[in-house]
Amino acid sequence: MKTALTELVGIRHPVVQTGMGWVAGPRLVSATAEAGGLGILASATMTYDELAAAIKEVKSRTSEPFGVNLRADAEDAARRVELLITEEVRVASFALAPKKDMIARLKDNNVLVVPSVGAARHAEKVAGWGADAVIVQGGEGGGHTGGVATTLLLPSVLDAVDIPVVAAGGFFDGRGLAAALAYGAAGVAMGTRFLLTRESTVPDEIKQAYLARDLNGTVVTRKVDGMPHRVLRTELVDALESAGPVSGLARAARNAAKFRKLTGLSWRSLATEGLRMKRGGDRTWSQVLMAANTPMLLRAGLVEGDRSAGVLASGQVVGLLDDLPAVGDLIETIVADATGILRRLASE
Amino acid sequence: MKTALTELVGIRHPVVQTGMGWVAGPRLVSATAEAGGLGILASATMTYDELAAAIKEVKSRTSEPFGVNLRADAEDAARRVELLITEEVRVASFALAPKKDMIARLKDNNVLVVPSVGAARHAEKVAGWGADAVIVQGGEGGGHTGGVATTLLLPSVLDAVDIPVVAAGGFFDGRGLAAALAYGAAGVAMGTRFLLTRESTVPDEIKQAYLARDLNGTVVTRKVDGMPHRVLRTELVDALESAGPVSGLARAARNAAKFRKLTGLSWRSLATEGLRMKRGGDRTWSQVLMAANTPMLLRAGLVEGDRSAGVLASGQVVGLLDDLPAVGDLIETIVADATGILRRLASE
Repeated sequence: MKTALTELVGIRHPVVQTGMGWVAGPRLVSATAEAGGLGILASATMTYDELAAAIKEVKSRTSEPFGVNLRADAEDAARRVELLITEEVRVASFALAPKKDMIARLKDNNVLVVPSVGAARHAEKVAGWGADAVIVQGGEGGGHTGGVATTLLLPSVLDAVDIPVVAAGGFFDGRGLAAALAYGAAGVAMGTRFLLTRESTVPDEIKQAYLARDLNGTVVTRKVDGMPHRVLRTELVDALESAGPVSGLARAARNAAKFRKLTGLSWRSLATEGLRMKRGGDRTWSQVLMAANTPMLLRAGLVEGDRSAGVLASGQVVGLLDDLPAVGDLIETIVADATGILRRLASE
Repeated sequence: MKTALTELVGIRHPVVQTGMGWVAGPRLVSATAEAGGLGILASATMTYDELAAAIKEVKSRTSEPFGVNLRADAEDAARRVELLITEEVRVASFALAPKKDMIARLKDNNVLVVPSVGAARHAEKVAGWGADAVIVQGGEGGGHTGGVATTLLLPSVLDAVDIPVVAAGGFFDGRGLAAALAYGAAGVAMGTRFLLTRESTVPDEIKQAYLARDLNGTVVTRKVDGMPHRVLRTELVDALESAGPVSGLARAARNAAKFRKLTGLSWRSLATEGLRMKRGGDRTWSQVLMAANTPMLLRAGLVEGDRSAGVLASGQVVGLLDDLPAVGDLIETIVADATGILRRLASE
């Protein structure tokens, strides 16, 4: 199926697997690439060396294009950008919008830049800086998310920019892809649906915990890191929601220390980032400290399989999923169904 | 444009104007009918005599089919059902699902029954009782609404029933209609978009207050009547959100008295309804008392044009609307755009 996204990236199908922290590793990304979609490695939860190894592993498994998700505000962001250029990675995606010069550096070296945006004005800004496409996620999506649903956020972004727009938040099947194309999107991006595949390395017990949920099984909480975050509703999340500020802070401090150790970020870097976050918005210092909380809480669930200690990011879509398909079958079915739907509707 | 909905009802276009209290009167409904859509009169905020007069007025303005929205739990619901039968109204719609015998009575007399549902299991139930179609509204929709977005609630209902499903929540243009059809819906239903038309009788000052909002201009509050209710974020709503239980109750009691006077509901009927509501869920008595609050607070804004005293129900879509089109132009544009989109996509 051809769209502006498939033409831009050189992939066969307009289906993106998002760069979920701890989840989007070489195995999932290469499976997506081989199936004709765009798989994106999550580098925010990897050290530089781990990222370098992950890129090599993907390239050993597939010769198809793939992407890497970067934190534009990471201490070693510039070095990671050079790594993508050296390794000829096709797409750099960003959860937080990159600065103008970082976009220019990547584009000058044939790396496509595809930031995620949460509002039409953000899309306009990065398009003006040269972004090649944007991913826009409606509030029903998992992880950090906004309050505006896909049915409204998507058309608002499509009206604001001329570059390809990839729709995320609530997508899981061929009907959704057909609907996204009807809105004018160039494809769909999915997280939770790819987390729940055979190739996903999330522990099986955790996958089963996801599959058991219904449409009311997620909740948006600010208690993980101060930002709205859609996660599975668990006892831990309920406890976070009702916990006082002191116990929350103590846990956040412990987790910040662990994350620092794992990723090699210095305290200075965490503090610098904290200062930036504090200036950027209306967060309290406790929320800033809690920011390093997220990756550790996610890791406990998604890597270690600890349901009681972990926070499990998830879209509302989890309520409609009840299988663990192979990535190749998933993408093939989605594209075939969407094609059939659009043909049938035009002939009616 | 033909769909299962247009065939069922005998209308030209798969576009429904919902039965918004105080808003969906004879002028708006007849304009929608003349334009080829399905307009639905809001009878919950009318006395029996007002409803009888409104039906006559619609019939004097158009010979096209239209609908009436009923409260299945109203004291005089059975009498209103007989009125619809006598007047040969084409469609009876319901915000709360009607009982089995009420559905049977309407169907036996050639009135189509189209309840609104908020979950797949409700759709299954009313389909089993003989409903001819259902309207399903995602959480981004206005007024009483749920927490699940259209992108997920719609496919979940489509998977559950075989009768036509009309999609609501987030729709306003031809892209949305094309997307709804791609999901498998038989059409779209819109409230806020029809409230903001030339034929809508909402005071112009209030229409302007809606048009000024952006995508973050609505909020879901339980402080009006204890149920989640999406409304414009106003000073009154902020005050309700922060008000203590006593002032809220005093205001609710005053409003219940006013509503009783306007609609002729007896205190016994309000109390009976309250008891039913109390049994049906986990509401407190104060929430039950507050239930009669909603129509009065809506009336202050939507009829009297009092922005400071009124609660203004609205979908998130208000953030994307910036005009007051004539109903005929609106429906024509939506259908033409959707048709063009679907033709173009099939040929790509």
